[in-house]
Amino acid sequence: MDSMTMIATISIIMAGLTTGFGTMGPALAEGKAVATALTSLAQQPDASATITRTLFVGLAMIESTAIYCFVVSMILLFANPFWNFAVTQAAGN
Amino acid sequence: MDSMTMIATISIIMAGLTTGFGTMGPALAEGKAVATALTSLAQQPDASATITRTLFVGLAMIESTAIYCFVVSMILLFANPFWNFAVTQAAGN
Amino acid sequence: MDSMTMIATISIIMAGLTTGFGTMGPALAEGKAVATALTSLAQQPDASATITRTLFVGLAMIESTAIYCFVVSMILLFANPFWNFAVTQAAGN
Amino acid sequence: MDSMTMIATISIIMAGLTTGFGTMGPALAEGKAVATALTSLAQQPDASATITRTLFVGLAMIESTAIYCFVVSMILLFANPFWNFAVTQAAGN
Amino acid sequence: MDSMTMIATISIIMAGLTTGFGTMGPALAEGKAVATALTSLAQQPDASATITRTLFVGLAMIESTAIYCFVVSMILLFANPFWNFAVTQAAGN
Amino acid sequence: MDSMTMIATISIIMAGLTTGFGTMGPALAEGKAVATALTSLAQQPDASATITRTLFVGLAMIESTAIYCFVVSMILLFANPFWNFAVTQAAGN
Amino acid sequence: MDSMTMIATISIIMAGLTTGFGTMGPALAEGKAVATALTSLAQQPDASATITRTLFVGLAMIESTAIYCFVVSMILLFANPFWNFAVTQAAGN
Amino acid sequence: MDSMTMIATISIIMAGLTTGFGTMGPALAEGKAVATALTSLAQQPDASATITRTLFVGLAMIESTAIYCFVVSMILLFANPFWNFAVTQAAGN
Amino acid sequence: MDSMTMIATISIIMAGLTTGFGTMGPALAEGKAVATALTSLAQQPDASATITRTLFVGLAMIESTAIYCFVVSMILLFANPFWNFAVTQAAGN
Amino acid sequence: MDSMTMIATISIIMAGLTTGFGTMGPALAEGKAVATALTSLAQQPDASATITRTLFVGLAMIESTAIYCFVVSMILLFANPFWNFAVTQAAGN
Amino acid sequence: MDSMTMIATISIIMAGLTTGFGTMGPALAEGKAVATALTSLAQQPDASATITRTLFVGLAMIESTAIYCFVVSMILLFANPFWNFAVTQAAGN
Amino acid sequence: MDSMTMIATISIIMAGLTTGFGTMGPALAEGKAVATALTSLAQQPDASATITRTLFVGLAMIESTAIYCFVVSMILLFANPFWNFAVTQAAGN
Amino acid sequence: MDSMTMIATISIIMAGLTTGFGTMGPALAEGKAVATALTSLAQQPDASATITRTLFVGLAMIESTAIYCFVVSMILLFANPFWNFAVTQAAGN
Amino acid sequence: MDSMTMIATISIIMAGLTTGFGTMGPALAEGKAVATALTSLAQQPDASATITRTLFVGLAMIESTAIYCFVVSMILLFANPFWNFAVTQAAGN
Repeated sequence: MDSMTMIATISIIMAGLTTGFGTMGPALAEGKAVATALTSLAQQPDASATITRTLFVGLAMIESTAIYCFVVSMILLFANPFWNFAVTQAAGN
Repeated sequence: MDSMTMIATISIIMAGLTTGFGTMGPALAEGKAVATALTSLAQQPDASATITRTLFVGLAMIESTAIYCFVVSMILLFANPFWNFAVTQAAGN
Repeated sequence: MDSMTMIATISIIMAGLTTGFGTMGPALAEGKAVATALTSLAQQPDASATITRTLFVGLAMIESTAIYCFVVSMILLFANPFWNFAVTQAAGN
Repeated sequence: MDSMTMIATISIIMAGLTTGFGTMGPALAEGKAVATALTSLAQQPDASATITRTLFVGLAMIESTAIYCFVVSMILLFANPFWNFAVTQAAGN
Repeated sequence: MDSMTMIATISIIMAGLTTGFGTMGPALAEGKAVATALTSLAQQPDASATITRTLFVGLAMIESTAIYCFVVSMILLFANPFWNFAVTQAAGN
Repeated sequence: MDSMTMIATISIIMAGLTTGFGTMGPALAEGKAVATALTSLAQQPDASATITRTLFVGLAMIESTAIYCFVVSMILLFANPFWNFAVTQAAGN
Repeated sequence: MDSMTMIATISIIMAGLTTGFGTMGPALAEGKAVATALTSLAQQPDASATITRTLFVGLAMIESTAIYCFVVSMILLFANPFWNFAVTQAAGN
Repeated sequence: MDSMTMIATISIIMAGLTTGFGTMGPALAEGKAVATALTSLAQQPDASATITRTLFVGLAMIESTAIYCFVVSMILLFANPFWNFAVTQAAGN
Repeated sequence: MDSMTMIATISIIMAGLTTGFGTMGPALAEGKAVATALTSLAQQPDASATITRTLFVGLAMIESTAIYCFVVSMILLFANPFWNFAVTQAAGN
Repeated sequence: MDSMTMIATISIIMAGLTTGFGTMGPALAEGKAVATALTSLAQQPDASATITRTLFVGLAMIESTAIYCFVVSMILLFANPFWNFAVTQAAGN
Repeated sequence: MDSMTMIATISIIMAGLTTGFGTMGPALAEGKAVATALTSLAQQPDASATITRTLFVGLAMIESTAIYCFVVSMILLFANPFWNFAVTQAAGN
Repeated sequence: MDSMTMIATISIIMAGLTTGFGTMGPALAEGKAVATALTSLAQQPDASATITRTLFVGLAMIESTAIYCFVVSMILLFANPFWNFAVTQAAGN
Repeated sequence: MDSMTMIATISIIMAGLTTGFGTMGPALAEGKAVATALTSLAQQPDASATITRTLFVGLAMIESTAIYCFVVSMILLFANPFWNFAVTQAAGN
Repeated sequence: MDSMTMIATISIIMAGLTTGFGTMGPALAEGKAVATALTSLAQQPDASATITRTLFVGLAMIESTAIYCFVVSMILLFANPFWNFAVTQAAGN
């Protein structure tokens, strides 16, 4: 298998794995956060303003780790430095 | 195995894996969120408006991670940059 | 193994795996959601309308992730772009 | 190993795996749903109509994911597009 | 290893695996359902009719997933389309 | 390794695995069912007739999945269609 | 490695594995059943007759799955049909 | 590696594995049984006779599965039918 | 596979893995921290200032470990010392 | 690798594994038994005689499974029948 | 693959793995510590000074293990003694 | 790889593994025993003599399984019968 | 791959693994210790002196195991006896 | 790979693994012991002398298993009998 195919296949594999597995943790964490938010709302409806605000800050923080993974996937698919180097070099030949 | 077959098979594998495993986390998280929403509703029926609204915001947030996975799968199947490059190159030859 | 057999076998493998494993998460999540719905109904029979409605919205949301997996399987079996490309190319030869 | 044997063996493997593992999740989920239904009935016998109805809707929903798996297995065994293509091609030769 | 031996061995492997692992989930689920039925009976002996009926419906539903697995095993052993094709073809030669 | 040895060894492996692992689930499930039966008896001695009857129905149902596994093992050892085919063919040569 | 050695080694491996792993489930299940029996006796000493009887029926049922495994091991070691066939055939040569 | 060495090494491996892993389940089960016996004794000292008797019957039953494993190990080391056959055959040459 | 391709593929693999798996721990930890923050707020709304402040310090601390992973990924993709060495050396030739 | 080295290395491996892993179960089980003994003593100091006696019987029973493993290890190291056979045979040559 | 490429790739792999997996433990531990800190604050707001101080000392201690991992990664990437030796030696040739 | 190196490397591997993994079980078991001892002391300070004595007997019993592992490691490193045999034989040549 | 490269790569791998995985246990253990310290402080603020002192002794003890791992990593990277031997020998040639 | 390199690399691997994994158990066990000590102190401050003393004896006992692992690692690195034998033999040549 030549060099460019190698880089292409590896990039595809990692793009999928990084998003596929990397979003599992955030999803579960968000599920937990939302779940306790609902429990708290049922327990203390008067504090719904504070609870909702804290929940959204927390979800944003957790979502950020999912976005790190998605960003790495997109970099690997569309802005891969090693692939660009290989294409340049192949064009140079 | 030639270069294009390689890229094709890897793309198929990752499209399946990313969706197959990547939706597991969101599914479980949504199940948990819905479950606590129901518990909360039973405990505090008066707060059903706030609970339902928070639940839907949370489900949308969690669903977004499942959609990242589905998007990566679709990109790999129908808008794969490495496959397009290979097809172009093969056509050029 | 020639190129078309390769793509065919990989497509079969991923079609099975994606559905087989991808429906595990939704199934468990739905089981959990239904279970808490039943607990909530037993605890607060008066709120059965709200509980049932929220349950069905939640089940639909969770089922959607199972359907993503089934869709990917069906695409791999019956609308596989790489297989179509290979068939076209083989016919062209 | 020739091309047709390859497709045949892979189809057998995936037919077994998809059903064997894919029914594990639904089975456990149904077990959980039935279990809580029984607990709820013991706790609130008066709501047995609502509980039973919700249980059956939920079981049908969960069973649907098991049926997706069984359908994919049956497609792989008896309506496999790749196998049909190979048989046709072999007959054509 | 020739083509028929291959199909035979794979069929044996999958027949065993599908039944061996596929019955694990239903068995555990039934154990859970029976266990809660017993707890419920001890807690609310008066509702024994409803509980027993719901239990049997649930067990039948769960057992159905075990039967899917057993059916696939039996198909692989005694009505395997790929094996029949191979035997026919070998007889034709 | 010739064809018959192959089928023989695979049959031995699957006969052991199917029984060895396939009885694990039922055993645990029966343990759980018996355990809750005992708890229920201690909690509500008056309902011992109903509890015992429900327990035995449940154990029979769970044992059935263990018996599926044992049956598949015995078929593989003593009524294996692929082995019989191979013996017949070898005798015919 | 010749054919008979192959069958012999595989039979040894499966005899060990089937007993070694297959008794794990029953052992744990019996431990659980005995443990709850003891808890129940401490909680309701008056029902000791019913509890003990139900325990022994349950243990016999669970032990049966361990015995299935032991039987398969003994068949593989001392009444292995494939080994007997091979010995007969070797003697015939 | 010649045939006898093969059988010898496999027998050693399985003798170790069967005892090493097969005693894990019984050990944990006995630990659980003893633990609940102690809890029960502390809770109901008056029933110590019944508790102790039930405990010893249960331990004997659990120990039996450990002994199955030890027996298989000893058979593999000192009364291995395949090894005896091989020694006889080697002596016959 | 030549030396530069090797370094490129390994860098891609590790960039994906480090982010994909390394963000799982922080995500779950943040989910837990946010969840207890919400529970605490519902339990003691008066202490919301202290709770929110402690939560944000904690989230920052946990996020730092996710950032270590992202930093290592970015170093591997865009400031990889071994890749730079290889490029320099290749240019020198 | 010659036959004697093979047997020697396998014996060393299994001696280590059998003791290393086989003592894990008993250790955990004894830890559990001792722990509940201490809880029981704190709860019912008057029954310390019965508790201590039952504990020691139980520990002896659990320790027996650890000793099975140690015995198998020692047999493999110092009374290995296959090694003795090989040494005798090598001496005979 | 020549010697320097080998060292380079291994260093990249370990740099990623050490950070990626090594920060998982600390992240979870910090999540737990922060979570209980919040619970404690809600339960005993008067002791917030002591709780916050103890929390920060604990977080620092836990963060130290994450930093050990990050330090090892950085040493492997930028101050790797084996790589430096190899570069020196290659330059010397 | 010659015979002596083989035995040496395997002995090193097993010495490490047996101690490394074999002490995990006893460590956790001792941790559990000590933990409950402390809980019991806090609950019933008057029984501290009996508790401490039972704890030390239990710890000794658990430590014995750790010592079995350490003994096997030391035998493998410094009194290995197979290594001694090999050294003797090598010296004899 | 020559001998020195081998030792270098293995040393790098083990340095990373030992720190990366070896710090996971201590991190979790410290997280647990800190967490209970905080719970205890909230429950019994008057005993804060004793609690803090015991916590610090415990953290030091746990940190010691993390430091064993870090020390082994540093020895492997900067004071590796086998590497030094190899360098000396290579210089001697 | 020559004999000495083999022994060296294996020794490095096992030194790392034994310490890296072997300290995980003790660390977790110590974390648990310290945690319950703190809970006990908060619950019964008057018994702090007995609790602290028992804790230190227990920690020493648990630490001993971590030290077994560290000792084996140090023996493998700096007092390895097989390495010394090999060095002596190499020098003798």
